Formats: sequence, C-alpha cells, structure tokens
Amino acid sequence: MILTSTANPQIKAIRKLRERKERQQTGLYFIEGLRIVTEAVQQSAPIETLIVAPALLTSSLARDLLAEAAQRGLSILEVSEAVFASLSQKEGPQGLAAVLHQQYQPLHSIHPQPGQTWVVLDSVQDPGNLGTILRTHDAVGGSGVILLDQCTDAYDPTAVRASMGALFSQQLVRARLDEFQAWQQAQNLAVIGTSDKAKDNYHGFAYPDPLLLLMGSERQGLQPEHLRLCQAVVRIPMQGRSDSLNLAVATALVLYEAYHQRSAS
Amino acid sequence: MILTSTANPQIKAIRKLRERKERQQTGLYFIEGLRIVTEAVQQSAPIETLIVAPALLTSSLARDLLAEAAQRGLSILEVSEAVFASLSQKEGPQGLAAVLHQQYQPLHSIHPQPGQTWVVLDSVQDPGNLGTILRTHDAVGGSGVILLDQCTDAYDPTAVRASMGALFSQQLVRARLDEFQAWQQAQNLAVIGTSDKAKDNYHGFAYPDPLLLLMGSERQGLQPEHLRLCQAVVRIPMQGRSDSLNLAVATALVLYEAYHQRSAS
Repeated sequence: MILTSTANPQIKAIRKLRERKERQQTGLYFIEGLRIVTEAVQQSAPIETLIVAPALLTSSLARDLLAEAAQRGLSILEVSEAVFASLSQKEGPQGLAAVLHQQYQPLHSIHPQPGQTWVVLDSVQDPGNLGTILRTHDAVGGSGVILLDQCTDAYDPTAVRASMGALFSQQLVRARLDEFQAWQQAQNLAVIGTSDKAKDNYHGFAYPDPLLLLMGSERQGLQPEHLRLCQAVVRIPMQGRSDSLNLAVATALVLYEAYHQRSAS
Repeated sequence: MILTSTANPQIKAIRKLRERKERQQTGLYFIEGLRIVTEAVQQSAPIETLIVAPALLTSSLARDLLAEAAQRGLSILEVSEAVFASLSQKEGPQGLAAVLHQQYQPLHSIHPQPGQTWVVLDSVQDPGNLGTILRTHDAVGGSGVILLDQCTDAYDPTAVRASMGALFSQQLVRARLDEFQAWQQAQNLAVIGTSDKAKDNYHGFAYPDPLLLLMGSERQGLQPEHLRLCQAVVRIPMQGRSDSLNLAVATALVLYEAYHQRSAS
C-alpha cells in the first residue's frame, strides 16, 4: 500500500524531525538522497524505516538497494510523490529517504588508544562546520567527535549532509565540561587546543598519541575554562588581514598535520 | 530625511541585489552587518551607498564609522527600522549595510610574480565554499582567485559572509577556459591541480613559484580539459570511507602546505 496523505500521522511525525527538539525527544533523525541512504545501509547504521517514493525511483542502484534492504528485513514505507515532496528539503527529490536511530555513546565507554585521534568541540554553532569536521576526521582515520555543552546537533539535516556519510562511521559523544574534565584526568589524556594567541606553531608541533584536539566556537574560540584543560595550545599562522580561519578549515589543518606525523613515524 | 517606505524604488532596487541576475546587470552587491561594513570602509572598498537605520544603531563603533564615512563624502541613506528589516537577511539586524561596486579585474591585467599564489576555481557551486576559500587565501597571503566558466558568484551574500572581509583584499578575476589557457601559456605559468587519482602526495610536493592552484567542482573534481592545463597533479591522502574532502578544506590543505614551504625557504 502506498501512503498518499501528507496529513498521515507517521508522515507528520517524520516531518517534525526537522526540529531539534523533536529529534531530542525521539532519538531519531531523517536522511534523504540516494548516496547517503546507500551509505547508511552499507555501514549498517540503525535504520528505523526506509521511505520510498516508487514513482521517483529511477535509478537501478536504488532498486538494488531496496532489494537488499527488504532481504535484511528493514521496514519500508512506500509513499506517493506528493508525500515524499512534503518530507523532502531537497530540490529534485530522489525518492529515497530514511529515519534512523541516533547513536550517541556515553563518555565513560570511550577509552582513547594509541594511534587514535578524537576531536572535542565546544559551542560549535554551524551544523555545516560540524558535518565537515566529521567528514575530514573520517578522512584521517579519526575515531570520533565529543560535543561539549552547547554544540549544534550532529543530526541536524545540514550536518548530516555535510558529513557525506562520516556520521555513520565516526563515534559521537555528548558531555558536560565537568564530566569531560573528570574523564580526561582519570585516563590521563593530553588535550591540545588552538588559539591565535598561542606561541607554538601547529606546523611541526609534536602531537601526543592518542591526540584529543579541542576546538572552540566559530565566534569566540576557546574560553579560559577550556584552555585550562589543554596540555598545550597551538597557533595556525596567518599573514593576511583576518585573525581567524573557518572552524572546519582550522580543524582540518591540525588534523592533517598530526596525520602526516603519524604516517611518517 | 529617513526613508520609511519599503516600496521606495531605491529600496526595491537594493532588495533585488539578492538575485544573481540583478547583481550581474548592475555590477553592484549588498553587504550588511557592523563587522563587514567596517572592513569595507577600512579597506577602501568602492562603496556606492551606506545604508543606516539610526534606530537600530546602538554601538559607538557604528557611530564612529558613520562619522568617518561622512567625512570621506560617502553617500549615506537613512532608513526606518522596517525598511532596514525589509533589506536584511539576518536575524537581529544591526542597522548598518552598504551597496558596493563589484571589482572583477580583467585576466590580461594579472601578472603573477614570484612569492604569489593564485587559486583557480572551476565550476564551484557553493558560495559558502568560495567565501571560505577567499578567507583562507587571505590568511596565507595569497593574491587572488580566478573563477573559470560556471562558478558561483563571489558577490553572493553567502560568499560575502563566509569570506569575512577577504572579498575586499583578494583580487577577483572571471575568465573562460580558453582565455585562461592562452594567458597561462603566454606567461609560462605552472598550474598545479588536485585529484584523488594523482600519484604525488600534496604533502612534501615541491610547489612552483608563483603557484597557481587549480581546484575542480564539489561534485566532480577536475575535468580532463582542466587536468590538461596542469604541470602536476597532487593527491590528498585519505584513509577513511570517503573518497573526497570538502572543497574549502582540500584547498586550505594545499595552500598551507605551500605556505609552510615558502616560509621555510
């Protein structure tokens, strides 16, 4: 049976997942598009429901994916073109979407090991930046991202899109600052921060292993209470008029510098 | 006199600058916010009109800026709060905006010198990426950005915002591919491209001086007709699931690698 009413309660509930509050209450989130849904299936992300508009599904790739999903016993919801359009935030919707369970892990279950990197973010506001950081961290083989206090939501549609599937491979943790501090001390973990006022150049700095890289917010950088957690703080040189870089760019520069060191050793 | 009608022809013309077509026809663009307008005034960007909503202007910084602008003889348009809100695309508008003249330069006027870097972009679609690339290029002391063919508009409000003022310091050029090729050959300039299929690692690669770094589109990377222009193509290593990085991140990694080499030599 194909659902044809945009007022159907299940459809209304899925549409509400655009709102952060609804995502928090349900622990669910929504993804759409052939590429990201394929990633979710391939990486065995916890899919609650696949949503399909058969009339829009033109590619054979999509049909293969659905066959695989049906074989795995995934719940599949068939909807009309109009219902799909009411869920979609894309131009030219591809007829494939999914509702997934969020996968935040408790901080106490995380034990960073040699060879691992973790990114710790404080008060990051832009979900696009967060998604891009997930994507870059996946590229350097990083383990996961710890979101402190007032960060944007990793399951925001913009973050999901920008992560290009890294959302499914990166471990995600949310923690309060005091929890993080206790955890860090108990495991004796070295945290490296960044600041335009630091003395050490990030380039050539000897990063600890495992590396926990702490980055502050887009507007304010690291606050004093965060700088206190850091064993060292590094600076990215800038010679233009600006005194800062885009957050995802700054994070990438330090992550790749540490990556090159690990690869060379 | 304070303009109070949102239907005033001048106000309607400014509002239309949100559209790319209108920006192309008029050669103008719109910026808003205390920080970016201050940058524009300080960097002597060609301001056509300053737009001020006195009722919203609370900071003394803004009043100082206006005094400076008046002294320089800049045209200042005073508008009501409602009229300003009709122009603004920001939440919590700050009462300060400006219309500026675009400053594209002709390619034949550009002669890259030793010590300079130029970024060449093909078919970049996301104005946020373009703005972030301008910001990063400013940070490494780069000279300017050349936009080939079907690129997004550097004067798009999202690009302007992401550039954080670098739009005023970076030289901007638009060119067709054939023009670019003729220009490159006439000046015997080495172009370096990036591709995930390249053999050379971008890290440790000996970049030419001056450096022209050619980056492809978000979706497709460099096309064969662009790769043919390159003296060398470098690869950014990735060990995660993804086969690509965000375009602004990839550009930043290569720019900083070349920057570190120049700084060390």
